[in-house]
Amino acid sequence: MINLTRGVPPVDVFPTEDLISAAERNMRADGKTVLQYVQAPGYRPLLEWLAQDNGVKPEEVFMGNSSLEIFAFLTTVLLKPGLRAFVESPSYDRANLLLQRSGAEVVPIPLEVDGVDLNAFEAELKRGAPTLFYIIADFQNPMGTTTSLAKRQKIAEWARQYNFWIVEDSPYRPLRYFGEDIPSLRELAPERVLQLSSFSKILAPGLRMGYVIGDAAVIKSVTKYANNTYIGPVTPTQGMVYEYLKAGLLPANLEKLRNLYRPRLKAMLDAIDRYLPGTTFPRPEGGFFIGVTLPEGTKMDVLLPRAAEAGLKLTDGRGFYINPAEGERFLRLPFCSLTPEEIEDAMKALQPVIYENLAVK
Amino acid sequence: MINLTRGVPPVDVFPTEDLISAAERNMRADGKTVLQYVQAPGYRPLLEWLAQDNGVKPEEVFMGNSSLEIFAFLTTVLLKPGLRAFVESPSYDRANLLLQRSGAEVVPIPLEVDGVDLNAFEAELKRGAPTLFYIIADFQNPMGTTTSLAKRQKIAEWARQYNFWIVEDSPYRPLRYFGEDIPSLRELAPERVLQLSSFSKILAPGLRMGYVIGDAAVIKSVTKYANNTYIGPVTPTQGMVYEYLKAGLLPANLEKLRNLYRPRLKAMLDAIDRYLPGTTFPRPEGGFFIGVTLPEGTKMDVLLPRAAEAGLKLTDGRGFYINPAEGERFLRLPFCSLTPEEIEDAMKALQPVIYENLAVK
Repeated sequence: MINLTRGVPPVDVFPTEDLISAAERNMRADGKTVLQYVQAPGYRPLLEWLAQDNGVKPEEVFMGNSSLEIFAFLTTVLLKPGLRAFVESPSYDRANLLLQRSGAEVVPIPLEVDGVDLNAFEAELKRGAPTLFYIIADFQNPMGTTTSLAKRQKIAEWARQYNFWIVEDSPYRPLRYFGEDIPSLRELAPERVLQLSSFSKILAPGLRMGYVIGDAAVIKSVTKYANNTYIGPVTPTQGMVYEYLKAGLLPANLEKLRNLYRPRLKAMLDAIDRYLPGTTFPRPEGGFFIGVTLPEGTKMDVLLPRAAEAGLKLTDGRGFYINPAEGERFLRLPFCSLTPEEIEDAMKALQPVIYENLAVK
Repeated sequence: MINLTRGVPPVDVFPTEDLISAAERNMRADGKTVLQYVQAPGYRPLLEWLAQDNGVKPEEVFMGNSSLEIFAFLTTVLLKPGLRAFVESPSYDRANLLLQRSGAEVVPIPLEVDGVDLNAFEAELKRGAPTLFYIIADFQNPMGTTTSLAKRQKIAEWARQYNFWIVEDSPYRPLRYFGEDIPSLRELAPERVLQLSSFSKILAPGLRMGYVIGDAAVIKSVTKYANNTYIGPVTPTQGMVYEYLKAGLLPANLEKLRNLYRPRLKAMLDAIDRYLPGTTFPRPEGGFFIGVTLPEGTKMDVLLPRAAEAGLKLTDGRGFYINPAEGERFLRLPFCSLTPEEIEDAMKALQPVIYENLAVK
């Protein structure tokens, strides 16, 4: 069975030995801190490192047990029934779920190859400004698209004008395999952006180490909410990440990951070109995913079991849409944890599943 | 400044070297698991160890990033406005806060030296059964009291009859310095009890390693809620705890802690006897705290700054009460992280603060 579902890194990329020695160094030097109660947002040396690395003050940084958890805190602190939240459509299924859990009205804005449809965004703005807009501007999950500079500028301008928060989720931003970086939304409108980052895709997911950078008052509310929820986050893993960063090991790890994932992205694009004619998809320059719109007539309830019979585990595309029916033809293809050969095999196996499926519809 | 506030273990009791080697062993043997995404409730070998150790099935155990976080999940999943929750009065301030955050009606039941006042409990039951009753039956925080077997039996009986959950928070249960264990509420009514346990007081708080044992359907709801919130908990620390437990190191650590804390409890009781005449307090047989009711006329807003002037940091007693005014005379004295000499010095310094305070009221 080839797994084409969750966007997980391949396990052989984890720098296990480096993390073991980072943990050892940190606990030996500072075990009395990281093993004791530490109030949210956690281990101070890491907080200061992240603040300096991002050019902000420590009080503009909050660290939690995963960036998803931080987004859960943000949606709880900022949203409630009666308020609106905008989200790219499609978007990260778990983010959609947390937005819906808040009770706010969740407004999907159609995603184009260079970012959200600005006309649709503006029309919704005029219907009622949101409290926040959740966006994955770089190598979007599930689409793989990157929001253009022009669209980022317009969104930043609207955020100022209509006074909403941009929650910029950036787990894939350091994983660009082709082309040039585009300024982040936080760089364009630091006062309106809460930027989520994570070590899950660039170090190891099990650490659940995420952080958010933004407005000090929001950070303070989130910190208080987190403190009331669990006192403080898990700290020995924060100490581990701190020692790893301090030893200067991250840049080489990123380089290793980019060199590993670049040919995988290329192999996936080539395979889609070859095996999935008549589909539409963006050509991502980084990240973990390519979002493919399958031919008309595709039905998830037919596709998924057929794929399973052919030895392929696929993600239900409907989960990425606030209106699930829009995802009937949507397939998210992850490529990082498969070798080019496995990608070739998977796409070859996928082809008949997709087209036979259409023939019998 | 002598800190008489939070119930934190002394930092020199953390078995740092044992935890370093546990982490190393686990990451070397199973790094591909603990560094990867692991869905809630986390690291399977630890889950199975805890299940076996507690004589339950793995599906009756949920592990989270602290037992407080698990209680936050439980209150979110089980409670909502319109429902009732009973709680000992006084109780753990952070538990009070989470109960209130749920929007449920929080009903304080006065705590006596052998557990809650059963007449008050019954009267409230007749007014409307709760969805849950939060209780720290062993060495209560903040009182230090232990609920008698007779009261446990009555509460278990009511839980069955009125169909409410007993959330039995047991962080201090393994820390008995005198006397004999009393059966836990879970032993008396396993089908109605959700028992929270934690490694914070018996290993190290920074691990934020807590778990709950109880009804499989509730565990399933909490697991789903946790998965939607953060996918899974931090796992390298779970791996660390697992290796530590598997190596059989916990019993000796518990013995070490009990031998360290026993004379501290005794020193605190002696010092209260000597320096705080006219106060009432229980004589705990374990745990971290003794709750002292100060003489009539004590006012927190006078006491706390006076104490600070005398070099003593005290906890505001009002936080332990749903009706804060009831805590005006309440002082929680922690003893585990102070040596007998420090306890003696602290109580000597506290005496004039308490009685001068009364003289000028």
